[in-house]
Amino acid sequence: MRFFSDNAAPACPAVLAALSTANVVDTAYDGDGWSKQLDERVSALFGTPVRALWVPSGTAANCLALAAMCPPHGAIICHHDAHIQNDECGAPEFYTHGAKLLLADGVGAKLTPDTIRAVLDATRNDVHQVQPHVISITNATEYGRVYTPADVAAISDLAKARGLSLHMDGARFANAVAHIGCSPADVTWRAGVDALSFGFIKNGGMVAELLVFFRAELADATLYRRKRAGMLLSKGRYLAAQVLAMLKDDIWLDNARAANAGAALLATAAGDRLIHPVEANEVFLRVTPQEAASLRALGFDFYDWGPGEARLVISWNQQAGDIRPLAEAIAAL
Amino acid sequence: MRFFSDNAAPACPAVLAALSTANVVDTAYDGDGWSKQLDERVSALFGTPVRALWVPSGTAANCLALAAMCPPHGAIICHHDAHIQNDECGAPEFYTHGAKLLLADGVGAKLTPDTIRAVLDATRNDVHQVQPHVISITNATEYGRVYTPADVAAISDLAKARGLSLHMDGARFANAVAHIGCSPADVTWRAGVDALSFGFIKNGGMVAELLVFFRAELADATLYRRKRAGMLLSKGRYLAAQVLAMLKDDIWLDNARAANAGAALLATAAGDRLIHPVEANEVFLRVTPQEAASLRALGFDFYDWGPGEARLVISWNQQAGDIRPLAEAIAAL
Amino acid sequence: MRFFSDNAAPACPAVLAALSTANVVDTAYDGDGWSKQLDERVSALFGTPVRALWVPSGTAANCLALAAMCPPHGAIICHHDAHIQNDECGAPEFYTHGAKLLLADGVGAKLTPDTIRAVLDATRNDVHQVQPHVISITNATEYGRVYTPADVAAISDLAKARGLSLHMDGARFANAVAHIGCSPADVTWRAGVDALSFGFIKNGGMVAELLVFFRAELADATLYRRKRAGMLLSKGRYLAAQVLAMLKDDIWLDNARAANAGAALLATAAGDRLIHPVEANEVFLRVTPQEAASLRALGFDFYDWGPGEARLVISWNQQAGDIRPLAEAIAAL
Amino acid sequence: MRFFSDNAAPACPAVLAALSTANVVDTAYDGDGWSKQLDERVSALFGTPVRALWVPSGTAANCLALAAMCPPHGAIICHHDAHIQNDECGAPEFYTHGAKLLLADGVGAKLTPDTIRAVLDATRNDVHQVQPHVISITNATEYGRVYTPADVAAISDLAKARGLSLHMDGARFANAVAHIGCSPADVTWRAGVDALSFGFIKNGGMVAELLVFFRAELADATLYRRKRAGMLLSKGRYLAAQVLAMLKDDIWLDNARAANAGAALLATAAGDRLIHPVEANEVFLRVTPQEAASLRALGFDFYDWGPGEARLVISWNQQAGDIRPLAEAIAAL
Repeated sequence: MRFFSDNAAPACPAVLAALSTANVVDTAYDGDGWSKQLDERVSALFGTPVRALWVPSGTAANCLALAAMCPPHGAIICHHDAHIQNDECGAPEFYTHGAKLLLADGVGAKLTPDTIRAVLDATRNDVHQVQPHVISITNATEYGRVYTPADVAAISDLAKARGLSLHMDGARFANAVAHIGCSPADVTWRAGVDALSFGFIKNGGMVAELLVFFRAELADATLYRRKRAGMLLSKGRYLAAQVLAMLKDDIWLDNARAANAGAALLATAAGDRLIHPVEANEVFLRVTPQEAASLRALGFDFYDWGPGEARLVISWNQQAGDIRPLAEAIAAL
Repeated sequence: MRFFSDNAAPACPAVLAALSTANVVDTAYDGDGWSKQLDERVSALFGTPVRALWVPSGTAANCLALAAMCPPHGAIICHHDAHIQNDECGAPEFYTHGAKLLLADGVGAKLTPDTIRAVLDATRNDVHQVQPHVISITNATEYGRVYTPADVAAISDLAKARGLSLHMDGARFANAVAHIGCSPADVTWRAGVDALSFGFIKNGGMVAELLVFFRAELADATLYRRKRAGMLLSKGRYLAAQVLAMLKDDIWLDNARAANAGAALLATAAGDRLIHPVEANEVFLRVTPQEAASLRALGFDFYDWGPGEARLVISWNQQAGDIRPLAEAIAAL
Repeated sequence: MRFFSDNAAPACPAVLAALSTANVVDTAYDGDGWSKQLDERVSALFGTPVRALWVPSGTAANCLALAAMCPPHGAIICHHDAHIQNDECGAPEFYTHGAKLLLADGVGAKLTPDTIRAVLDATRNDVHQVQPHVISITNATEYGRVYTPADVAAISDLAKARGLSLHMDGARFANAVAHIGCSPADVTWRAGVDALSFGFIKNGGMVAELLVFFRAELADATLYRRKRAGMLLSKGRYLAAQVLAMLKDDIWLDNARAANAGAALLATAAGDRLIHPVEANEVFLRVTPQEAASLRALGFDFYDWGPGEARLVISWNQQAGDIRPLAEAIAAL
Repeated sequence: MRFFSDNAAPACPAVLAALSTANVVDTAYDGDGWSKQLDERVSALFGTPVRALWVPSGTAANCLALAAMCPPHGAIICHHDAHIQNDECGAPEFYTHGAKLLLADGVGAKLTPDTIRAVLDATRNDVHQVQPHVISITNATEYGRVYTPADVAAISDLAKARGLSLHMDGARFANAVAHIGCSPADVTWRAGVDALSFGFIKNGGMVAELLVFFRAELADATLYRRKRAGMLLSKGRYLAAQVLAMLKDDIWLDNARAANAGAALLATAAGDRLIHPVEANEVFLRVTPQEAASLRALGFDFYDWGPGEARLVISWNQQAGDIRPLAEAIAAL
């Protein structure tokens, strides 16, 4: 069984059904009936007026958000393990036309006001250095850690004091919200987030992510940037339909809860082997090469993550019954 | 009935079926079983080794192709009515980092060696001017005209003589091939094309286009550029599956033939009203505002295309029975 | 004698003297005593508060101005014979990160509200097309024609009505002002210009041009862009000193008057041969190849400018005595 | 007396004299007699055929070199204290269209094969990460340390083994060569350097630096990039003349030797206070705030460089007589 990545999982039934329903003639690009519902539907979810744009990838959502808030001669502060730094092949630099990522520390890939301040204070305020314009945090982080509303608010306070915008890479936003048990508003705009990459694909979607602007005016130029990037797909209704289907009846939350629950099962089994507390759907274990091999021999696949470390990611469709054998195998190591 | 755009049409049944079939666990990005078939399958179709990359939009296909062949300080020669010039919000400039589009003339948006030469000869060969690196032609053109293999070869001869690459925007490539009745190889690499944007979406696809490199080495850096643009979708198997489904049993050709046939029906009805010969699935008519209104009153929707002109586009799923009433209405004007 | 280009001329004595005077220890970049005088000195010249930045080339001045007023997804309207379109190797696209130049007509490379409106009206107001943000005019134009204050104001009225900024490429601004006999303010900010590339090099400077922002806030980000472009030279005092030297005692105007006077001498001699009225320091003549050869045989050098056309440019240091033999030779053709 | 920066120093007499000599009519841009001598003159200096381009700033030289060797989707390895990382406001990102700087360690801002290897080995070889294309080293470094030919060759061996190009930022190249006492060839192309930013401005020049390509083909596209960046000044002869004047009779070496000698004087006086060995013209001292204040009270100006640290830079024109009082004051602390 595969625990490589939640990107490997299939799309959930509601998404497939939505594609069939949307498979009718409608206006091209984002002029269709589904796309036109997004602003209102997502505003309702967040309890505040937002602008919501579908895009086909999380990288696109992240980078359009960053480009909306950072000029080419600016900088973005993020964790040195952030996806935008390590796994997007320089897409932030492409979309922002060369802004610089300034790298900060933090346990479990979580930034803190202190680690951000260290970067800010190391930057001279003169034209010889790029000046920070944005802080980008990932929730849940690349190590499956979750920023609470209080965590986010503390960072936002610093951001506001220094005139910076705040972006949340929410490739696993649903997992974070499911963990906290809060309203999605609490951990975003109410805590000071300006733009959210709201992930659906890892959580049971197929090819649709959502870029949510809590500062609505940021969407205006982004509409041009999205088109200019080739991201305004001509049959956009199929993307909007995926998002709407997963928002309906809280499927996005149910899927995330299921994945989190699977990870929690593994966490219990792993005990002292855990490298990071398990808060979302990722489990990082200390395992010897021999132990890793023995798990693989039992049919469990996962990535090595540095020497003596394994990463296991649980997907929305992996049931407790599927996961229990792995949990037992880990406990038995 | 809508004749606005083939982008308004639904996806064809084979595409929907393929999405269901692909809806299983597999490796993320382009490591899955479908994506890995593309090079071989498309090479077989063209009868020569190619590199074939899925992308979610035609703009992405065009611009990745152009970026592979034109440096930032270079220029691309295209028709002044080309989609890359008028309808992509500067995406070629974004992807190439600022290359310039040099605009040439030609009846029906078809370039000719003469009109290209006029642009080339107006460019001084010094560092004060951007130097042309690529010619981009659209087949079928924005006015539904088709470049034959001989047309393409004549342009390619000029391109080779001047050291230029040749790109074909094939958003409606299937319609062109169906019209000519040739092998897809004849009108591409055998006629000197280096890179093809092979369109599926307008022709019954959902969110997948294909970028085909006949000079395979161009794909190497493009793999990075695709990722960097946020175009390497994490569940790429759903894109590859769409393409493979339409290539199977020549569905791509059948769909295009159907659309072309519908356009031919209208062309016959239109007679002297035709602004351009109808070779693919687009029909451009001379109509007075009153005539246009009368057609709309009968329930036929389409775009005005300049004063006294209407554009009607036939989609893969519009049957002769659907179109005949419009043909009769046009004939009766 | 050379009439190729005013770029071929030496620097004027005041400039060389200023370099010697500035050849002392002072703060690097633009922290020196000369650079710090610029805002005030140039504000006094224009009779309004401006921000004035030295740069080492006219291309830099133009492109920093354009980048300050046009986003990457925007467009700049200019004449199809404009220097920024034809002679800067895509520098506007480089500095703006890929904005598009939309080309307008006009006799003698002079735009008019009508020719600009034609471009504006051909642009659809949707995200598929780049939207104009700036109009750029060249004064004096590439054909030596001059925009009067009324000409500029008419264009500015249109710009304001459409929400566009107005840039003036003043590589030969001094020649234009000298021709009109107005205050430099009259033909710039009082007529609605937002940013001026104020040329010194063709007019007796060595390596310093001035970028003048009449909307002062545009300078803020430009300071970063200038540095980021490698244009914030480390010994900037030598550039500021050149500019200040030429502003002193109206040397910039005297130099321009001298060059204009030389051109006027030739214009009188040329009579019907003139292709454009001579208003600044450039003369465009109709000459047969034989006539051109005969002038060259007499030792006069100049560029052919299209078939049967010659361009002669008079520099600040070419005296009437130097020019009269050419005038006589032209008259004798 | 000022010890802030060698950028604060005036130009040396030979440079001023050269400007006067060059102050005649000649062809614009780089078509003049001085510019045309550069390739040959610099090839002779280095004992190998090179292409040598003047540019007005060291940032331009660095970034044009990097852009010639690194694609937008690539990366450049440099020291975390490198000028290109910290003091050019993102110019490398601008010129390369968004390449990423990967930061390596090393005492005294000197990279070593080991510290470079650490960065290389941390980079996965897949399309999700930017791949290194260039190593950039600064000689002398930002802390006045010098790479010997053996140091450079060791890095070049690694570069070649990994398929990387090697750039040397030689803003203080003359000081490094003067320190080593080698031929400029020994520490550049013979040790594997592909491109050198050969600094003149800090060493007695005014507004001219040299970009030297030891792989001549890199110059071809760079000629376009230089123009496109607005760096092809229209009166280029004044830049070429500066460079030629300083190469004549080894003035460049004499100036550097003088500055190095001054620094050596201070180094002897400083003894244990030295933070870095003094090899070029920079001296970094441990001083308390009180000690720094006492030096300033005596009329010596310099930058604080982190807490308890001072940076003193000696310029070409600071004589032993000028420096001795400072040396004595330091010794007396």
